[in-house]
Amino acid sequence: MHNLSIQSVRTSERNQLVEVTSAIERVVREAKLADGMVIVHVPHTTAAVTINENADPDVKHDLLRKLSELAPHHESYYQHGEGNSDSHVKTSLVGPGITVLVEGGRLMLGRWQGIYFCEFDGPRNREMWVKVVEFESP
Amino acid sequence: MHNLSIQSVRTSERNQLVEVTSAIERVVREAKLADGMVIVHVPHTTAAVTINENADPDVKHDLLRKLSELAPHHESYYQHGEGNSDSHVKTSLVGPGITVLVEGGRLMLGRWQGIYFCEFDGPRNREMWVKVVEFESP
Amino acid sequence: MHNLSIQSVRTSERNQLVEVTSAIERVVREAKLADGMVIVHVPHTTAAVTINENADPDVKHDLLRKLSELAPHHESYYQHGEGNSDSHVKTSLVGPGITVLVEGGRLMLGRWQGIYFCEFDGPRNREMWVKVVEFESP
Repeated sequence: MHNLSIQSVRTSERNQLVEVTSAIERVVREAKLADGMVIVHVPHTTAAVTINENADPDVKHDLLRKLSELAPHHESYYQHGEGNSDSHVKTSLVGPGITVLVEGGRLMLGRWQGIYFCEFDGPRNREMWVKVVEFESP
Repeated sequence: MHNLSIQSVRTSERNQLVEVTSAIERVVREAKLADGMVIVHVPHTTAAVTINENADPDVKHDLLRKLSELAPHHESYYQHGEGNSDSHVKTSLVGPGITVLVEGGRLMLGRWQGIYFCEFDGPRNREMWVKVVEFESP
Repeated sequence: MHNLSIQSVRTSERNQLVEVTSAIERVVREAKLADGMVIVHVPHTTAAVTINENADPDVKHDLLRKLSELAPHHESYYQHGEGNSDSHVKTSLVGPGITVLVEGGRLMLGRWQGIYFCEFDGPRNREMWVKVVEFESP
């Protein structure tokens, strides 16, 4: 069994981490996936997906602040005319996809791990593709 | 069905992004893969693979320029004798592999997404491993 | 066939790269996996996994040193109270998981590639989840 679900993500800031763990858990539940994997793909070039702490929101602040320090909005040498070269850089640093295991119907994340849609050029209406794939029984 | 294809990539600069989307699409087509995934692996330690904008070549310039600013060719504290510590750093920042979905024979990328082989210590003759894996029918 | 193995990783430094290639090879061997993939997931938010050079230990030094320069232990703007915002940043830059192919029972890595558990807030007792998944025969 495999199934693709296209999820909408509405962002409200230029740089924003939106937790999507429960949205992905819902896709797994609705697909009745027991043992397999979830492949999450962000089909944009100025947004990404990561896994990080799901407890203290200050972690989100510090991560976004540091990324913006590493890739500031403007650099004298940026040539791309749209003014979002920083967003493209952050996207390649963080990455467009992750694979998460599912065992016994449960998304296999560590205790403090949450999955975050990373907006780097919002606010926008975005998509996140969530593919669930069952593994054949042993 | 699953099949491994070893692709050659010839680079001409020390730092270079080579678009490989159509090469990967050809592997998918020749394998007659309908629904599944493509696992792309770069078997080098000074090269990587990423997904980013496929339209304006200035995005490639800005990304490479920023990566070289974050990890310059030389740092007083680099100890590795080969003089390519920057290449190893970039490789771990960008990552050695990506997984892309295939639905109905089509590589599932967003409208502006292209797949790029990232050369960080060229010019060289490189390899890219492209594994296509079919998912069992629902 | 698919099987999950939970591996323990004991780290001894705050920032440390621990090679885990042979531990993962052992999991593949014990599962008698011929053709498939290994999905490696680090269930922590201050640790990651990467692939880089397995020969000269200076590469590990230079990579860790550069990451600590990009994300120093302390920044005036860090708000997270635990004092490990740098560890969370490094985790999202390097990433929590990798997928490696297995062909004919052999982990498909390039000649100089090794898999490294990346400790960014040790020393600690850590876990690494290693899932082996067989691909159906062509």
